[in-house]
Amino acid sequence: MSRFLVPELAACQPYTPGEQPRDRRYIKLNTNESPYPPSPAVCRALEQAGAESLRLYPDPECRSLTEAAAAFYGLRPEQVMPGNGSDEVLFFALRAFCGREQGLAFADVTYGCYAVWCGLLGLVPRIVPLRPDFTLEPEDYFGLGQTRVIANPNAPTGLALTPAQVERILQEDPDHVLILDEAYVDFGAESCVPLIHRYKNLLVVQTFSKSRQLAGARLGLALGDPELIADLNRVKFSLNPYNINRLTLAAGCAALADREYFDRTRRAIIRTRTETAAALRRRGFALTDSCTNFLFASPPGGRARELCSALRDKGVLVRYFDAPRTARWMRITVGTPQEMEALLAAIDEIFAQEDGVCGK
Amino acid sequence: MSRFLVPELAACQPYTPGEQPRDRRYIKLNTNESPYPPSPAVCRALEQAGAESLRLYPDPECRSLTEAAAAFYGLRPEQVMPGNGSDEVLFFALRAFCGREQGLAFADVTYGCYAVWCGLLGLVPRIVPLRPDFTLEPEDYFGLGQTRVIANPNAPTGLALTPAQVERILQEDPDHVLILDEAYVDFGAESCVPLIHRYKNLLVVQTFSKSRQLAGARLGLALGDPELIADLNRVKFSLNPYNINRLTLAAGCAALADREYFDRTRRAIIRTRTETAAALRRRGFALTDSCTNFLFASPPGGRARELCSALRDKGVLVRYFDAPRTARWMRITVGTPQEMEALLAAIDEIFAQEDGVCGK
Repeated sequence: MSRFLVPELAACQPYTPGEQPRDRRYIKLNTNESPYPPSPAVCRALEQAGAESLRLYPDPECRSLTEAAAAFYGLRPEQVMPGNGSDEVLFFALRAFCGREQGLAFADVTYGCYAVWCGLLGLVPRIVPLRPDFTLEPEDYFGLGQTRVIANPNAPTGLALTPAQVERILQEDPDHVLILDEAYVDFGAESCVPLIHRYKNLLVVQTFSKSRQLAGARLGLALGDPELIADLNRVKFSLNPYNINRLTLAAGCAALADREYFDRTRRAIIRTRTETAAALRRRGFALTDSCTNFLFASPPGGRARELCSALRDKGVLVRYFDAPRTARWMRITVGTPQEMEALLAAIDEIFAQEDGVCGK
Repeated sequence: MSRFLVPELAACQPYTPGEQPRDRRYIKLNTNESPYPPSPAVCRALEQAGAESLRLYPDPECRSLTEAAAAFYGLRPEQVMPGNGSDEVLFFALRAFCGREQGLAFADVTYGCYAVWCGLLGLVPRIVPLRPDFTLEPEDYFGLGQTRVIANPNAPTGLALTPAQVERILQEDPDHVLILDEAYVDFGAESCVPLIHRYKNLLVVQTFSKSRQLAGARLGLALGDPELIADLNRVKFSLNPYNINRLTLAAGCAALADREYFDRTRRAIIRTRTETAAALRRRGFALTDSCTNFLFASPPGGRARELCSALRDKGVLVRYFDAPRTARWMRITVGTPQEMEALLAAIDEIFAQEDGVCGK
């Protein structure tokens, strides 16, 4: 770091994204991307948007997209704010709703960026441990008296609260915002978007990176009370008013319009997840009951680190989180059925070799 | 604003972007966009990038683009960091290099976002007035003992410092960063990028929105010493690691590769600017000696506000900045020769009507 950097940033720990290797072809099950391409409607919309229009700034208010999202979710446009990925939306929310003294509460096993943003914003993190089985108890969030963020479903555990459970947290402290990160909600959990009409302190964040196959376009949404959304727009227009480019706006609108493709692809993921979970259990893995597009799995003997490394050698990338509570676990993105067969075949080969070694 | 917003944000003043009207067709000379479409190479690159790849996250390190930009500017990739527009790059730089006590120094007449970011970051702005003729004197930046940002050429004045003048500021205080916002440099000013090799405290920021016709794709660059760039990446990876989407990365690389189109279109803008400036002077306008893609002009009698309003009624948008020092001035983006003819015809009509009214 240079001698010009402000001292408080020397201590902050940047996020380490999942590996995006360029050295060879891998079966990529490490960053929870969709194995399916975006809707054909997205491809057509990008062709129609055309490169010519790129000479002009995008609409800073993103009206086409806020209207499309409002229609999809049964909200009004002033209840929607898009961001450059849900990461940007979440950062704006923390900037708007967390004071330095107040900090931010979140689980000990959850999305790594929450702690990173606390570092950048100088917020004290209040870590709320998950229960031993990785479930999140609403009561553990009672009496905190501060802004809280909950990934629901949680990552990498794959477990979700019901809207009734979320409601208890919202009711217990109406004076602080609950940020609900629903990045993975479309793969089997129940969304809390309908609660927005009743709770002024609920901010729901969604992404187009998972169930809408647009990780490469960078698009997320904040959904909430118009006053919360106005606060987020205050941050956005003070930081980067033209934060969403024209092509991403066009892609997002088209993705929202194609409900059939959205439903078909997420059903396919759920089917593949169910089959893969059963196959892993047959091989002695422990799994949480994931309702996401990934599986959180602990191999026989808990030797997750070794298995991840062995899978990498065989051209299959999965994600390992090197922390005490997750040391025996790995996160496996649900790919196509063919990719999951390749994963299982690789696991079988690795186990067979180990047996061979042990048998000697 | 909601009762959940942190108090310090209640005071910050968000940026007001130039009008992006949807009510009718205008000749848009108000936001300094290019009148020419992006290079045909950009269109081809976007087709080749394809919507299919959007299911995958972009490269967070943006290696294709940092390599292309390094080749273009005679730098190494570690001297380059792309951002989601130059606005994001500038915000990252202020976050990295301005302490709360230290604040940020900039001109009284310059890009409005500098003051906005100070509001968001809680930085005290130190306003350094331009001279009466809107020129910036290097001496006025001596002895400040803090980070400074200078738009060079400046907006909306259109005036530039020479690299020799910039060098004097760099030398006078080697202990603080000088951020040089070169958004408009390609239309006739001399870039200070070559100074990067000799000054560790120089950060140059450029944009693809003006001379590369990609305002709608959102892309900017920070260029500087590897240590400064590493600091900016620390902020980026702590805020939004995947900040540049795949299509913008592809468009940016293609735009950098087509030097011939870049040179041809910026030469066309310079030619049109020269002709329009002469035509306005013949009509009694005062103008600065702009080396940008806009003209800073004061109409006869200084009635800029009224003229901007009358032009709007005739379907021509230009920008008026409602502040004491710029009250008699307007900023006119250089469009195509045909657009500038329409502007001049509209001005002639308005002046003729006024003469008629006065003559009564």
